Amino acid sequence: MNPVTSLLGIKYPVIQAGMVWCSGWKLARACSENGILGVIGSGSMHPEVLDIHLKKYLTVCNKPFAVNLPLLYPEIGEHLETIFKHKVPVVITSAGSPSKYTDALKSKDIKVIHVVSSAKFAVKAQNAGVDAIICEGFEAGGHNGREETTTFCLIPEVRRAVNIPVIAAGGIATGRGILAATILGADGVQIGTRFAISTESSAHKIFKDRVVEAKEGDTVLTLKELAPVRLMKNPFYDQIVDGYKKGLLTEELRELLGKGRAKKGIFEGDLVEGELEIGQVASQVDKIESSADIIKDLIKEYNQAVSLTKHLSWT
Amino acid sequence: MNPVTSLLGIKYPVIQAGMVWCSGWKLARACSENGILGVIGSGSMHPEVLDIHLKKYLTVCNKPFAVNLPLLYPEIGEHLETIFKHKVPVVITSAGSPSKYTDALKSKDIKVIHVVSSAKFAVKAQNAGVDAIICEGFEAGGHNGREETTTFCLIPEVRRAVNIPVIAAGGIATGRGILAATILGADGVQIGTRFAISTESSAHKIFKDRVVEAKEGDTVLTLKELAPVRLMKNPFYDQIVDGYKKGLLTEELRELLGKGRAKKGIFEGDLVEGELEIGQVASQVDKIESSADIIKDLIKEYNQAVSLTKHLSWT
Repeated sequence: MNPVTSLLGIKYPVIQAGMVWCSGWKLARACSENGILGVIGSGSMHPEVLDIHLKKYLTVCNKPFAVNLPLLYPEIGEHLETIFKHKVPVVITSAGSPSKYTDALKSKDIKVIHVVSSAKFAVKAQNAGVDAIICEGFEAGGHNGREETTTFCLIPEVRRAVNIPVIAAGGIATGRGILAATILGADGVQIGTRFAISTESSAHKIFKDRVVEAKEGDTVLTLKELAPVRLMKNPFYDQIVDGYKKGLLTEELRELLGKGRAKKGIFEGDLVEGELEIGQVASQVDKIESSADIIKDLIKEYNQAVSLTKHLSWT
Repeated sequence: MNPVTSLLGIKYPVIQAGMVWCSGWKLARACSENGILGVIGSGSMHPEVLDIHLKKYLTVCNKPFAVNLPLLYPEIGEHLETIFKHKVPVVITSAGSPSKYTDALKSKDIKVIHVVSSAKFAVKAQNAGVDAIICEGFEAGGHNGREETTTFCLIPEVRRAVNIPVIAAGGIATGRGILAATILGADGVQIGTRFAISTESSAHKIFKDRVVEAKEGDTVLTLKELAPVRLMKNPFYDQIVDGYKKGLLTEELRELLGKGRAKKGIFEGDLVEGELEIGQVASQVDKIESSADIIKDLIKEYNQAVSLTKHLSWT
């Protein structure tokens, strides 16, 4: 029995990442209905919007799902109330200390998974009592750790640091990627980029088309002085580069970033002024598909890769 | 038949990386004698030193081996003459255009492998007529590409871009790592960090001990304005950070770096003033071993991982 499927009550040890401006109830439902864990990303939602998404999800789907909760979210108290009210079965916490809310969540019988970018933080999360770890490598899209440890190096480190289930994230978009992560020590994986441009993602068509066209080297981890974020290079990123050349101070960079850039880029499809958060693996994601088709393809390719591996022994 | 073993006439599709101040004839011999491709790193050798190393290697070993040749090396003409004189069977070129010397090398029946950090450069190398590609991810030690593409994302991109053998490098130090890279599309792997601290490496004991102690997050890719290099954080790196804070210009950074920093750090064991080039995977390398023991362990763990994979199918 796989520890991730048994913990979460899902068929395949795969989690759809909770991504700002992408993952509402439609995407979460499409994923949960097809045997993986669908996740509603609350980071881009006001409490009343999260309430609407949870109501809709619960009306149309009775499969396990999760809410992703960035712990720095300004209205976190209201989000927690909404999560408790709807009896959300799993909460994925990120960007903050796991010791702060894990007990409160677990006292309501909620399973807690915490996102980390290093083995050190994985141990802290385990000590805080979380049920599982998502370890996210340098190649992951959106907000990211400062250690810059890659998925290939991070998985084995986290694996040997903790004894709770380890879910790998960052750079994984294919069945082969899932198997590679498993061999490196992961019990399951989280996939973002590929679902970010699924038909059920709330992202704008213009954004999805841009991701389809993305080539290797089109994403970059930047704004490390504020909070490191991986995005696609575009005129807004050029402004950041100019800012660095001019020696802008952290506060000036914060002003340049302003508010609502991710919404503008991902949800409104503004490729010029928007912040186009996406993973490095965007270069491997070549079409917009339904989540059902993505999951079918992941399973098929994963099992093919397992079969091929049988013949790889060295004598 | 594996395309890397058949191309190079070796038993296992593994290459020991040619590393400055680590890989002389002793390391290359220990690796070649144990079934992988030993490599003499010429980047830190004057032509007469390379000549000595080749003479010694050829006196004690008749197994296939390679010389690693950074194409920006100032005395490259003399290095080439030395390589031709000793009929070196394989040359691994890096840090420069593959179109410049590939024909000359191949006209002497030398197999040419070129190191790249992106799929775009892999295609250029294939077009230049090289026999195989080494694709090196962001996590690799020493000098590195500007794209920052990680091993997990780079292997599938290079795999689909070329039809010659692909050898993965960066972050690989274990049998599980070799299998994961293979599943992502590699025909073979190159391993640096683990051999950099083998007993046969020319690196100083103090440097090797420091690598053994290295924790996750101890390496960083820096000096991107000059030539990106991954090194261990130390007082010299602190000087670089101070330099950035003061807004040093590229030329001033070059002065700060000066000459001979890698020799000081790796060969002389100066952990304060030296440049401690090593891969991110240093955190996983926990002891100084003979190359024979390393290779035995790699094979054993690789085959164990293959066996375990058989049971991983999803139903």
